[in-house]
Amino acid sequence: MIIVIKPNSSREQIDEVMKEVAKLGYDPRPIYGATQTVIAAIGDERTHHALESLNVLPQVEQVMRVQKRYKLASRESHPANTVVSADGVEIGGRRLVVMAGPCSVESEEQLLATARAVKEAGATVLRGGAYKPRTSPYEFQGLGKEGLRLLRAAREETGLKIITEVLSEADVEHVAETADILQIGARNSQNFALLVECAKTMKPILLKRGLSERIEEWLLAAEYILTNGNPNVLLCERGIRTFETYTRNTLDLAAVAIAKKESHLPVIIDPSQGCGRADLVRMLCRGALAMGADGLLIEVHPNPAEAMSDGQQQVDFRTFREIMGELAAFAEPNGRTL
Amino acid sequence: MIIVIKPNSSREQIDEVMKEVAKLGYDPRPIYGATQTVIAAIGDERTHHALESLNVLPQVEQVMRVQKRYKLASRESHPANTVVSADGVEIGGRRLVVMAGPCSVESEEQLLATARAVKEAGATVLRGGAYKPRTSPYEFQGLGKEGLRLLRAAREETGLKIITEVLSEADVEHVAETADILQIGARNSQNFALLVECAKTMKPILLKRGLSERIEEWLLAAEYILTNGNPNVLLCERGIRTFETYTRNTLDLAAVAIAKKESHLPVIIDPSQGCGRADLVRMLCRGALAMGADGLLIEVHPNPAEAMSDGQQQVDFRTFREIMGELAAFAEPNGRTL
Amino acid sequence: MIIVIKPNSSREQIDEVMKEVAKLGYDPRPIYGATQTVIAAIGDERTHHALESLNVLPQVEQVMRVQKRYKLASRESHPANTVVSADGVEIGGRRLVVMAGPCSVESEEQLLATARAVKEAGATVLRGGAYKPRTSPYEFQGLGKEGLRLLRAAREETGLKIITEVLSEADVEHVAETADILQIGARNSQNFALLVECAKTMKPILLKRGLSERIEEWLLAAEYILTNGNPNVLLCERGIRTFETYTRNTLDLAAVAIAKKESHLPVIIDPSQGCGRADLVRMLCRGALAMGADGLLIEVHPNPAEAMSDGQQQVDFRTFREIMGELAAFAEPNGRTL
Amino acid sequence: MIIVIKPNSSREQIDEVMKEVAKLGYDPRPIYGATQTVIAAIGDERTHHALESLNVLPQVEQVMRVQKRYKLASRESHPANTVVSADGVEIGGRRLVVMAGPCSVESEEQLLATARAVKEAGATVLRGGAYKPRTSPYEFQGLGKEGLRLLRAAREETGLKIITEVLSEADVEHVAETADILQIGARNSQNFALLVECAKTMKPILLKRGLSERIEEWLLAAEYILTNGNPNVLLCERGIRTFETYTRNTLDLAAVAIAKKESHLPVIIDPSQGCGRADLVRMLCRGALAMGADGLLIEVHPNPAEAMSDGQQQVDFRTFREIMGELAAFAEPNGRTL
Repeated sequence: MIIVIKPNSSREQIDEVMKEVAKLGYDPRPIYGATQTVIAAIGDERTHHALESLNVLPQVEQVMRVQKRYKLASRESHPANTVVSADGVEIGGRRLVVMAGPCSVESEEQLLATARAVKEAGATVLRGGAYKPRTSPYEFQGLGKEGLRLLRAAREETGLKIITEVLSEADVEHVAETADILQIGARNSQNFALLVECAKTMKPILLKRGLSERIEEWLLAAEYILTNGNPNVLLCERGIRTFETYTRNTLDLAAVAIAKKESHLPVIIDPSQGCGRADLVRMLCRGALAMGADGLLIEVHPNPAEAMSDGQQQVDFRTFREIMGELAAFAEPNGRTL
Repeated sequence: MIIVIKPNSSREQIDEVMKEVAKLGYDPRPIYGATQTVIAAIGDERTHHALESLNVLPQVEQVMRVQKRYKLASRESHPANTVVSADGVEIGGRRLVVMAGPCSVESEEQLLATARAVKEAGATVLRGGAYKPRTSPYEFQGLGKEGLRLLRAAREETGLKIITEVLSEADVEHVAETADILQIGARNSQNFALLVECAKTMKPILLKRGLSERIEEWLLAAEYILTNGNPNVLLCERGIRTFETYTRNTLDLAAVAIAKKESHLPVIIDPSQGCGRADLVRMLCRGALAMGADGLLIEVHPNPAEAMSDGQQQVDFRTFREIMGELAAFAEPNGRTL
Repeated sequence: MIIVIKPNSSREQIDEVMKEVAKLGYDPRPIYGATQTVIAAIGDERTHHALESLNVLPQVEQVMRVQKRYKLASRESHPANTVVSADGVEIGGRRLVVMAGPCSVESEEQLLATARAVKEAGATVLRGGAYKPRTSPYEFQGLGKEGLRLLRAAREETGLKIITEVLSEADVEHVAETADILQIGARNSQNFALLVECAKTMKPILLKRGLSERIEEWLLAAEYILTNGNPNVLLCERGIRTFETYTRNTLDLAAVAIAKKESHLPVIIDPSQGCGRADLVRMLCRGALAMGADGLLIEVHPNPAEAMSDGQQQVDFRTFREIMGELAAFAEPNGRTL
Repeated sequence: MIIVIKPNSSREQIDEVMKEVAKLGYDPRPIYGATQTVIAAIGDERTHHALESLNVLPQVEQVMRVQKRYKLASRESHPANTVVSADGVEIGGRRLVVMAGPCSVESEEQLLATARAVKEAGATVLRGGAYKPRTSPYEFQGLGKEGLRLLRAAREETGLKIITEVLSEADVEHVAETADILQIGARNSQNFALLVECAKTMKPILLKRGLSERIEEWLLAAEYILTNGNPNVLLCERGIRTFETYTRNTLDLAAVAIAKKESHLPVIIDPSQGCGRADLVRMLCRGALAMGADGLLIEVHPNPAEAMSDGQQQVDFRTFREIMGELAAFAEPNGRTL
C-alpha cells in the first residue's frame, strides 16, 4: 500500500506513520518528494491488516492499495479460460450457451410450452424462477416447491438443463436437487452467507452483479465461492443502476471485456433484466456476443402481456426464434458458434 | 395505473389494451386527448396484477403507477410517529438515541473500554459487529459467537442495550438472544429471507438502506417486516453509492425528511458509514439532528488507526465526547433532547 | 399530463386543482378511482404551461407527463433515417464512418503522421482537438488557432474531413471555417448558447451526451439545434458517469438502440472516452457496430504514452489497423459496410 | 505520482517505465515489493506532464496521483476563510447570507412583490433568472434584458443586492452591469470559456456544482476563475444526480463540510434545486446551516402553482417567512448569526 503524507508534515509525524505501518505487519519505505512524502508499505495486502485505517491520522492524506484484492478469480492465477459444465452443457468454451425461459414459473402449461419453444429454437438451458425476490411483499412470490417440480418435469420432457434462483440459505439444499445451475440474484450478490451455502453444493453458480456493485466487488463475491472450494462460477452482468430512467437498468457491456480480462471465469449477459424492456433485448444480444460473452440469459414467455412478473421485459416465442436465428452471425467473427 | 397509448394508434389497438386491462382485473377508462389517448385503470394496484407488463404491446408507450406501493409503512396508514422500545430504551420519541461502539468486536478489552466510554458520554445503546460482512473473504470476518458473548458481558457491566448485525438466517435465533436490536446491513437490505426470519423474533430491527436503494424500495423492504407481524422497524440511512470518490458514500440527509414524511417509523442516521471518513462524522451528526433524525449510529474505537475493520471511519473516545457535548444544541430547535 | 390527487382529498380540493389546470390552458378530466382521483389534463404539453408546478398544492401527490418532449428529433416526426453529409462523407447511411485521430493536436509531425495512418487504415474523417476542455486549468489547453491550421494542412494533404471541438461561442465562426463537423463535448452538452451558435453555421454538429444526461435530455439538446434550423445533428454516446471506477466512464451501448428507436438522427460511438482505457477500445468497437452504431470516433496517437492529453485511452497505429481490419465482420450482419 | 507495475514484469520492463517517467520530467524512484514493484515519480504533478498516459504500457497496472490538483482554491494555500463582498454584503463571515427570489423573473409585479417579501423576512440578496437554461427549447427561456431591467428596479426600490444567472459569453458584460453576483448554473459548471469570461468582470461568481461533478472537479472549476485573477468565488452545492427518483436531485450536504475543509471559499446551499420539491426546502435549510453553510439560495414565488418555471420547488411568502423565523436557532450553535 502507499500512504500519502500531507504536505508540511514534520519528520516526527512521518516517523509516527512508519511505526504504525511496521506495527501492522508491513515494511515501510519512505520516498521524500519535493512537496510531499509517500510511504510505500511492502507486504502482502491480502493477508496483512488493511492500512486504510491510517487515514484517521491527521498527517495522512490518503492510503492507496497497490495489489489486486481477488486471487482465485484472477486471470493471473489461472491464465486459461475456465469451462464450467452444467450436467454436460459446457459454458465458457467455443460454443455459446443460451439459457431461456420465463421470469417466473407460473403453471405447467406455461412452463412446458416455453421449454419446448426455447429448445426448438436452440437453447440448451431452461430458466424459470420458483422463488422470486420481489421489491414488494404484495407481489407474486413464486410457486416455490411446486415450481421446482414443474422445472424437473420440463427437464425430463425436453432434456434442457435447469437454472433457477435461490433466495434463502434454507432452500439451498432442495433447490440444488432440481437445479443444474444455481442462480444468485442481484439483490443477493453480496449475501455472503447464501454464497457460501450455495458453494457447498458444488453445483455451478451463476452470480449476478449487484445493482451498484463495482467489478472488483463482483469478483470478490465470486472469490467467496471459489475459496469455499467450488470452482464452478459463472459471472452474470445484468445491468447496473444509474440515473437513466428510459431503461430499468444500464447494461454495462464493457463489463464483459473487463471481466474476461481480469478473470478466467465465463461471463453471461442477461439482456432482459439488463434493460427491462422487451423491445431492446434483441439488440443487446447482438452487442453481448460481439463483445465476447460466453452466453445469454433471456426471459421468454408465451404471452408477456399477462406474465405474473416482469412481463415488460420478456420476449414472446416468435421474437426469441428471430433472435436465435441471427445470433450466429455476431458470434462467428469472435470464433464462436451457437 | 395509467397506460399511455402511442400517438396514431387505431381504435382497435386502444380497444385491445382496454380488454387486457379488464382481463387483469381493472376497470379501464379511456381519456382521448388531442394527440394521444391514455387509459386509466381503476383498481387497487397492490392487490391486482401489475400492468407494467402491458409495455410489451407495441401500441403502449408507457405504464405509470398511481398508488403508493407501501401500506403498513406509510404515514397514511399510521399518522402518529411510531416509538420503538429496545428493552426499555425508546426510539422515535422526544429523546434522541445515540448508539455507539466499534465497527467490529475485536477483544474484551477493546469492547469494554469502548462501552464504558460511550456510556459515560451519553450513549444508551452499544453497537459492535460479531459477524462482519466484508467485501473480500480475506478480510476479518468477526469473532462470531465469542463476539456475542463479549457484547453480553458489556451489557451486563454497563446496562447499555446491544445492537449487532445478523448476516445469516441460520444465525438469527442465537444473535437475537444477545441483541436488543437486530441490524440488517446495506448489503442485505433486500435479502427478504433474512428480513422475514428476523421479523419472527419480534425484536426491533434496524434496517439499513441499500447502497442503491430508492426510498420507495427501502420502505417496501420495511413492509416485508411489518407484514410479517413485527412493527418494530427502525429505518437507517447510511449513505448511498454515487459517482463521488472523496467519500466512500454520499449521505442522503434529505432521506430523513422524506422517510419521516412518507412513514411513521423512526429514522436513524449512520454518519460513519455515511461518509467513510472519521473527519466528517462530527459535522454529519449536526446535520442529521437538525434534519430531524431520531437517533445516530456512530462508530467509536479506542485506537482507530489499528482497528481490524474500517478504522478510517471510526472516531476515538475524545472526539466522541466532543460530539456528544455539542449535539443537544442542534436537537433543541427541533424540540428534541439528548 | 396526469395529476394524481392524494387519497382522502375533498371534492373542493379536487375542484381547486381542476380550476388551476384549466387556468393553465388544459382541459381537465377527472377520473374517480376506488381510493384515489387522477385528473387528465388534455392539451399539448409542449406548447402549454408545464403542470409540474401543481406539485406544490398539498392535495397533489404527483404530476406525470404523457407526451414526449422532443419533436423534431423524434422518429415519429421523421420516420426515415437522417443521412448527414460532412462535405460529401455521408453519415447515417449504409456505409459506416470512422473518425479517428489524436485527442489533441500537438504538432505538425504528430498530426500528419496520424492522418496518414488513419486514412490508410480506412478512416474518412480526422479528429483532433485544437481547443481542449481540461478539468484543470494547469493542463494542456490545446494549440488553438495553430491547431486549426494544422488540421487544414492535414485535410489538404490527405483529403480527410475534419472534426474538431468548439468550446466557446466566440470561436464558433473561425472553428467552422476549418471544421467539416463541429464537435460539442460532454461538458457543453447543455450549453445551449453554444449549441445555438453552432447551429447557425449549418455545419454538421456531433453532439456528445453529457456525463449524467438522460437520453430524453440529450434529444432535447439536439432539439435546440434542430429548432434553430440546422438538421445536421450526429448523436454521440461517449460514456456516462456511474459508480464504477475500473473505467473512467460506463459506455451505454443500449443508448445506440434507444436513440435509433426514438430518433432518426445518426448515432456515433466514442469508445475511447467511453471507457478511458486503450485496452478496451477494440472490444467496444465490436459491440458498437453490432448494436447498430452509424460510426465510431476513435482516439489514435503515434505514441500514446507520451501524449499531451488522455494518452491512456489512445490506441497506437498498429492497434488501430487491427481494429479496422476486423470491424467489417461485425457490421455486415446488420447490413452495413465499412 | 505512483506507477504500479504488474506482477512478474521483467527488470527491462520496469526500466522502460523508469525511462518514460524521466523523459516526462519526473525523477523515478523504484520500490521493489514482494510481488510487485511501484515507481514513485518525484516532481510537481501540476506543472509536469500527467503520467496517466503510461497506463497504455502493457506492464503498467495503474497510475495514481499523489498531489492535490487545485492550488489557489485549496485551504492549504489560504488557511483563513475567504470573505467575499457583494457590493457591501459580506459572504463567508460570521453573518449568514440568504439569497431569495423567484426561479424566473416573470413580471414587474411578481418580482417586486417577491423582493419586498423576502427583504422583509430578512434576505439581503434577491435572486431571479432573466436568462433561463431550460432542458427543452419549448420551455420559457426567460425575459432576457427586460428581466435584467426589472431586477435593477427591484434593487433600486429595496436595496437588495442582485444575483442572476449568465448563460452566454456574449451576455456576460451586460449581465454584469446588473448583477452584484454572477451565477453559473450546474449545466455550465465546466463551461470554462464562460467561467473565464465571468472572471474578467471581477464580480463575485456563484459557481454551482455540476450534476455529476466530483468535489475535486468543482474546486478545479473554481480554480479557472481564481487563476484568471478573480478571487471572489462562492461555491454552491445544489444537488447531484443519483438513482433516486423521489427527489429531482440528491442534496449532498456533506459537501459543505468537505468544501470548507479543502477550500477557503464560502459555501452556499441551494435547497430548492437541491431536492426539486417545495415541501422539503425547510428541512434542508436546517441541515445546511447546522453543517456550516455560509448562506442559502432559496426560490420564492408569490404563487408557485402558476410559476413559469420550476413552480414545484418554489416556496410561497408565508413558508419563506417561517423558514427565516426558525433558522437562527440552527446557526447559533455554529457561532453564526442571520
